[in-house]
Amino acid sequence: MHAQFERYRAMVEAALPLALPKDGGWAEVITDAARYSLLAGGKRLRPCLVLAAAERVGTDLRDSPSALREALPAACAMEMIHTYSLIHDDLPAMDNDTLRRGRPTNHVVYGEAMAILAGDALLTHAFAHMARAAQANPEHALRHLRAIGRVAEAAGLTGMVAGQALDVLCEKQGADPARREEQLHFIHKNKTAAMIRGALLAGAEIGGASERELTALSRYGAALGLAFQVADDILDATSTTEEMGKTVGKDEKEGKLTYVALYGVDGARQRLDSLTEEAVREVQPVDADGFFSDLARDFAARKH
Amino acid sequence: MHAQFERYRAMVEAALPLALPKDGGWAEVITDAARYSLLAGGKRLRPCLVLAAAERVGTDLRDSPSALREALPAACAMEMIHTYSLIHDDLPAMDNDTLRRGRPTNHVVYGEAMAILAGDALLTHAFAHMARAAQANPEHALRHLRAIGRVAEAAGLTGMVAGQALDVLCEKQGADPARREEQLHFIHKNKTAAMIRGALLAGAEIGGASERELTALSRYGAALGLAFQVADDILDATSTTEEMGKTVGKDEKEGKLTYVALYGVDGARQRLDSLTEEAVREVQPVDADGFFSDLARDFAARKH
Repeated sequence: MHAQFERYRAMVEAALPLALPKDGGWAEVITDAARYSLLAGGKRLRPCLVLAAAERVGTDLRDSPSALREALPAACAMEMIHTYSLIHDDLPAMDNDTLRRGRPTNHVVYGEAMAILAGDALLTHAFAHMARAAQANPEHALRHLRAIGRVAEAAGLTGMVAGQALDVLCEKQGADPARREEQLHFIHKNKTAAMIRGALLAGAEIGGASERELTALSRYGAALGLAFQVADDILDATSTTEEMGKTVGKDEKEGKLTYVALYGVDGARQRLDSLTEEAVREVQPVDADGFFSDLARDFAARKH
Repeated sequence: MHAQFERYRAMVEAALPLALPKDGGWAEVITDAARYSLLAGGKRLRPCLVLAAAERVGTDLRDSPSALREALPAACAMEMIHTYSLIHDDLPAMDNDTLRRGRPTNHVVYGEAMAILAGDALLTHAFAHMARAAQANPEHALRHLRAIGRVAEAAGLTGMVAGQALDVLCEKQGADPARREEQLHFIHKNKTAAMIRGALLAGAEIGGASERELTALSRYGAALGLAFQVADDILDATSTTEEMGKTVGKDEKEGKLTYVALYGVDGARQRLDSLTEEAVREVQPVDADGFFSDLARDFAARKH
């Protein structure tokens, strides 16, 4: 699994710098700002999931280099969208964070106005990049349309943005005490899990997945995404800023609604284990080589 | 022309409220915030241009109700993107405007964090909406992919966002004195004209336009878009806040780089006339009924 993941990661790292327009002309600064955050490293989890799904579904492209080639623009698009969400999340009006992936956040370097625009640019360019690249495979136009739909639905009003909105609301007004668990679940199902599930489904659509494969990856993605967030909350409570490359311990200080706040560290660890089991169980129909179940188990044990 | 335009406008006004998800669940507030700005009226110019182009190009769909039906989601998407750009443009970190379309701006009502997210939501949902609707016409999947590409390119790093970035930069650092004209042209070619041209091209792609039709609409859109901005600058300098429904006279007060600042009101009026002539000339191949040339002449004479 680790070798496969590194292979995907290398493809993504090679493709990302080429995925942005080369010459911004008078507006070079906005391309620079977008590039600053997009090329700052990171796990590249979402794009790797796009590639992993594309390679493991369908029949005509399975295990074929062309599945990866066709899915690579969607992989880059997912990373652009993930990066835009971090830039906007870090803004003074949102989380007001100054450190991300071990470097000053976008607005610290480029100013608030340019950071807003850099996020907007990355989000928009994600779709430009997917649509442009997809036109090279006219016979798969419908697959790519469906993939664009999966990405946009994961990122938008039925996904990530909805989760962020409730997160903002809970921080401003405090969570509804009687419904904290329900609200926390809504936030992370949408804010984190929707994009992880969306990455898998976008890759699966491009690979020509069957309904059965789409269902398996959808359930796997939902469980894996929540597991990822629970693990993140545990790490925020138990590790150091140096280990994580971003400010940690903020959650508790700010009285933020997290899995650790709700269940305690031990309770959150139990929740993580049961989500991991669920993910492993659901993904069986598309897990002949064990990649997806190994990945879920790896998440449960992650240290950063 | 006016009757046709009103027909398109009525279709857009009827479709827009249905284009957003109905139930936001816990995140209802973000759908409310998006709806507040999207349904605040406005000229609906860009979506009407999508419909007008779709109905006047190609051969298989020309003059057919199905051309309008197929292009309507792209029309709504263009208005979502236009609306998102206004919400982000009005933010305190950008233009810091408090009045838009006669009502308080989005961040005045919903707060800055929610306004950022409402913009993000509208931008993302534009693509979700186009991709979802397009799947109903699998035989036209490639046309819709091309339309999505046109929309994203018009809105992103090669279009609107690039123009906004240079606009922000010029306001912060002042325009380069030796290159003010060149910079102003870049700003408006991208910030305003790209979206007007993009609307025409998106509609044209869905209608199955020929290369010749795409070229004509591309040139027409570029000229019409600049004419629109020149007219806007003239109106900002010569009309009242009540007439416009938004704060006017700000440009001069803030020493902003505009066509009026550069050429004076009379010089800007001359520029407007020559852009209008250019638009009328270029659009001839797709203007059998005179709609597009009438529209350009109407712009040149507009009062609000």
